[in-house]
Amino acid sequence: SSANTPLTATLFPGDGIGPEIAEAVQTIFKAAEAPIVWDEQHIGKEVDPRTNSFITRENLDSVLKHRIGLKGPMTTPIGKGFRSLNLTLRKELQLYANVRPCVSIPGYKTRYDDVDLVTIRENTEGEYSGLEHEVVPGVVESLKIITHVASTRVAEFAFDYAQKNNRRKVTAVHKANIMKLTDGAFLRCVRAVAERYPDIKYDEMIVDNTCMQLVTRPTQFDVMVMPNLYGDICSDLCAGLIGGLGLTPSGNIGANGLALMEAVHGTAPDLVGKDAANPTALLLSGVMMLRHLRLTDVAGNIEQAVLATIAEGQYLTRDLGGKSGTKDFTKAIIGHLK
Amino acid sequence: SSANTPLTATLFPGDGIGPEIAEAVQTIFKAAEAPIVWDEQHIGKEVDPRTNSFITRENLDSVLKHRIGLKGPMTTPIGKGFRSLNLTLRKELQLYANVRPCVSIPGYKTRYDDVDLVTIRENTEGEYSGLEHEVVPGVVESLKIITHVASTRVAEFAFDYAQKNNRRKVTAVHKANIMKLTDGAFLRCVRAVAERYPDIKYDEMIVDNTCMQLVTRPTQFDVMVMPNLYGDICSDLCAGLIGGLGLTPSGNIGANGLALMEAVHGTAPDLVGKDAANPTALLLSGVMMLRHLRLTDVAGNIEQAVLATIAEGQYLTRDLGGKSGTKDFTKAIIGHLK
Ligand SMILES: CC(C)[C@H](C(=O)O)[C@@H](O)C(=O)O
Ligand SMILES: CC(C)[C@H](C(=O)O)[C@@H](O)C(=O)O
Repeated sequence: SSANTPLTATLFPGDGIGPEIAEAVQTIFKAAEAPIVWDEQHIGKEVDPRTNSFITRENLDSVLKHRIGLKGPMTTPIGKGFRSLNLTLRKELQLYANVRPCVSIPGYKTRYDDVDLVTIRENTEGEYSGLEHEVVPGVVESLKIITHVASTRVAEFAFDYAQKNNRRKVTAVHKANIMKLTDGAFLRCVRAVAERYPDIKYDEMIVDNTCMQLVTRPTQFDVMVMPNLYGDICSDLCAGLIGGLGLTPSGNIGANGLALMEAVHGTAPDLVGKDAANPTALLLSGVMMLRHLRLTDVAGNIEQAVLATIAEGQYLTRDLGGKSGTKDFTKAIIGHLK
Repeated sequence: SSANTPLTATLFPGDGIGPEIAEAVQTIFKAAEAPIVWDEQHIGKEVDPRTNSFITRENLDSVLKHRIGLKGPMTTPIGKGFRSLNLTLRKELQLYANVRPCVSIPGYKTRYDDVDLVTIRENTEGEYSGLEHEVVPGVVESLKIITHVASTRVAEFAFDYAQKNNRRKVTAVHKANIMKLTDGAFLRCVRAVAERYPDIKYDEMIVDNTCMQLVTRPTQFDVMVMPNLYGDICSDLCAGLIGGLGLTPSGNIGANGLALMEAVHGTAPDLVGKDAANPTALLLSGVMMLRHLRLTDVAGNIEQAVLATIAEGQYLTRDLGGKSGTKDFTKAIIGHLK
């Protein structure tokens, strides 16, 4: 697609601070002349019987049509039988790989420097099967499902990703010493894929040790691939290393380039309407989206502008240690566009 | 038991560096006049059909008789059908609570100061059920089992522990937003116990968020209680905050005071026979053992001696950044006994 033909992308502003940060992203995209037209989608006020979720058929169809989307935080209404909105999107759209780059942000000080890793999480099965039951009173069980198809698919994604992004190593994270059949199957699938990528180093690490190594020596990691729950845990841990979910982009990728990028932080109800929300995670997810669409120049421009704004440190939102509101932070980012 | 009547404790020196660090512990205990007689136990060279493990019936009976033990690292021989030695001990002896205090060691610098928390892990079920099977080719599943009995038992242990150790808060760690039935049942059991301890604060945190909070603000935590796998992961992460498994003691506790303390680090085959092993984790596990036996004075004396030796920094083993061997480190600790 040439830079002149705008592409349409689905936008779920989401709940809580979602609409405010989505507006910030739209303003910055416009200022940067990103060739994107948004198809704004709002989830239903009632469960859609066709999807068994507040995510409506129209919501899903919008993403399936445009093949690309950006999503703010959503709260799943509490109550029996309400499926998580995030999970519904991932499962219904078969967004099988969850990608979270964690890169230290120059100028934003944490206990860790030079973190530069990516977690790639299997996004459709594992401990998230939803299959649970009470065996007898007082005894409940849940099923963890591992399939060769999903394990191979996410492994291929991880090695492809490593290759395309000039990364040198993929680490498979597992607990196959205990879950010999399930995690063992996952590992065997990743190993088989690894053999097809002789130029990329491959190793394996047990999940408990991985979490210890992540807090002691995170720079040893590059690309990491793992089953659903370990990915959930490790990606949040990694976000913590660089400053938290307010700063980390994320993408959910499916077949044939289908992709929904999202900010994985919460809806921050206490900040709503106060011009206090930090749009960084959604904006960097938008940058991931632009890169996914090969709009590399405009992606790079927006990324350098937000990084420069954070490094400068003059117009940060409160969660980043500053005193500015969403609007002034947004203006500062626009001021750094080239 | 008076200080004059020695108590017998089972000692599993274990594999690899196990015998060397066990010797160091024995030497220090003797110098401190700890009233302990050791019943040394070695695991079998072949699988004992009565236990289906290299852990023999006699090994188990020794712990059951003395009701207290200390264990070095063990390697489970690799091969089909060999059950993990650590797991066999925990399951056969119904050591249902795994306790790991993580306290910053003054003088041993990490990225974190003032960490002072305890993870309490359900030690008998959950993701460690060992129940796995292949459903059809390419589809495997494993069962996570949560029972009211085991959840209530570990919750009671956690609150009791908090009360006895003057701790103020217990946090239940879970993923009940996804595993609504299993982790939901765990939470309900912990909540019911929490109501019986009105003086101890109680809160709940999702496991992914917990891991992020542990790396950003670990001082917010006090006692944490959780299902088996989350405990495995979080306790290793916490060990990383204070310097790793070489510095963290651990205890496995069962009914009526039955207890087996253990160093949870590996067997370090490359260090064997080189006077290079660090006995700290096993020694601090021994201190936990003495406290468990209410031998508080001698426990305190040994603990202050090892902490003083580390703070002094002159006779540290290489893994701690020093240049000394196990023997000189041991001597230095003895030199600090009061
Ligand atoms: C909100 C929750 C269902 C979700 C998950 O567990 O996947 C979140 O933690 C995430 O990582 O996106
Ligand atoms: C060795 C392994 C079976 C064990 C576990 O997973 O429990 C270890 O990681 C631990 O924490 O003691």
